[in-house]
Amino acid sequence: MRRLDLRKAFTLIEPGPVVLVTTFDGRKNNIMTISWTMVVDFSPHFAMTTGPWNHSYTALSRTRECVIAVPAADQLDKVVGIGTCSGAETDKFAKFGLTPVRGVHVKAPLIRECLANIECRVVDVVTKHNIVVLKGLAAYLDRSREEKRTIHATGDGTFVADGTRFDRRKMMRAKLPDGV
Amino acid sequence: MRRLDLRKAFTLIEPGPVVLVTTFDGRKNNIMTISWTMVVDFSPHFAMTTGPWNHSYTALSRTRECVIAVPAADQLDKVVGIGTCSGAETDKFAKFGLTPVRGVHVKAPLIRECLANIECRVVDVVTKHNIVVLKGLAAYLDRSREEKRTIHATGDGTFVADGTRFDRRKMMRAKLPDGV
Repeated sequence: MRRLDLRKAFTLIEPGPVVLVTTFDGRKNNIMTISWTMVVDFSPHFAMTTGPWNHSYTALSRTRECVIAVPAADQLDKVVGIGTCSGAETDKFAKFGLTPVRGVHVKAPLIRECLANIECRVVDVVTKHNIVVLKGLAAYLDRSREEKRTIHATGDGTFVADGTRFDRRKMMRAKLPDGV
Repeated sequence: MRRLDLRKAFTLIEPGPVVLVTTFDGRKNNIMTISWTMVVDFSPHFAMTTGPWNHSYTALSRTRECVIAVPAADQLDKVVGIGTCSGAETDKFAKFGLTPVRGVHVKAPLIRECLANIECRVVDVVTKHNIVVLKGLAAYLDRSREEKRTIHATGDGTFVADGTRFDRRKMMRAKLPDGV
């Protein structure tokens, strides 16, 4: 897993993949599955909908840190498993055979087996809407992985992997930010 | 285009497709391409990042209404075209051969050629983060369309269409809301 230019980190989230979000509460690592995220700006900032109904929320709001890990399609069953059990009773890294890796900026762990990871700091919580605003501090991408497709949750219990890719860079050139 | 149970409307946005957002300023319809959206709750509420840099933003903030239209993969070039010209100089419905259709709750038009449409009211603007919070009022789905794949923007000028679908409804059952 090697560093990815932070100016490209928003391209990991913009397509809308289901992600794993890790936290560390001072004693234990935890992971939650989150599908409700979006990019807020290129710097990069991200928004994520979460709240007290997620066990990780306590650690997230206390430490104001997390890692967004982007899983690949071959990790679908882990993603669903992580999303359907609680960190209150489970060590999810152990249960799902995932490896926590220490990052540089935050104590929440990267997930070695994921396609990409973004270390994040919480910069705001819009409590009225359960929206957490994150600033990306460092990004990592595993270029060696054969399975490069991400997964999108539909919300009805089905998921769709990435399919055909279309290149419209020429048409988009004037709209692309520096560094991508 | 037939009505879709509003309890299912969040499943149109949760996968993270690039969408077209229409507005009507009292004189003219307009369309913008938006990739930065997320679901906020099942009722449904959505969040969208936009601001004064989009010509549509003036109409959106004045009328507090819009329609989120979900295009299919065969509309990619229109989506990119709409995202790279300004409604200040262009009638985008005419230019891109799209048909505005009157909805029930808002004056912003549905787009007949899209896979799905959601009439929305602006319920809040979190100006600090350029996040607009929308409430979905009615949803529509064109079940007759052959091309059912949606498109995800990567942000670097490439786009990826939906690929293989995986069914994990059994594993997810306890987490699914009513009506989906």
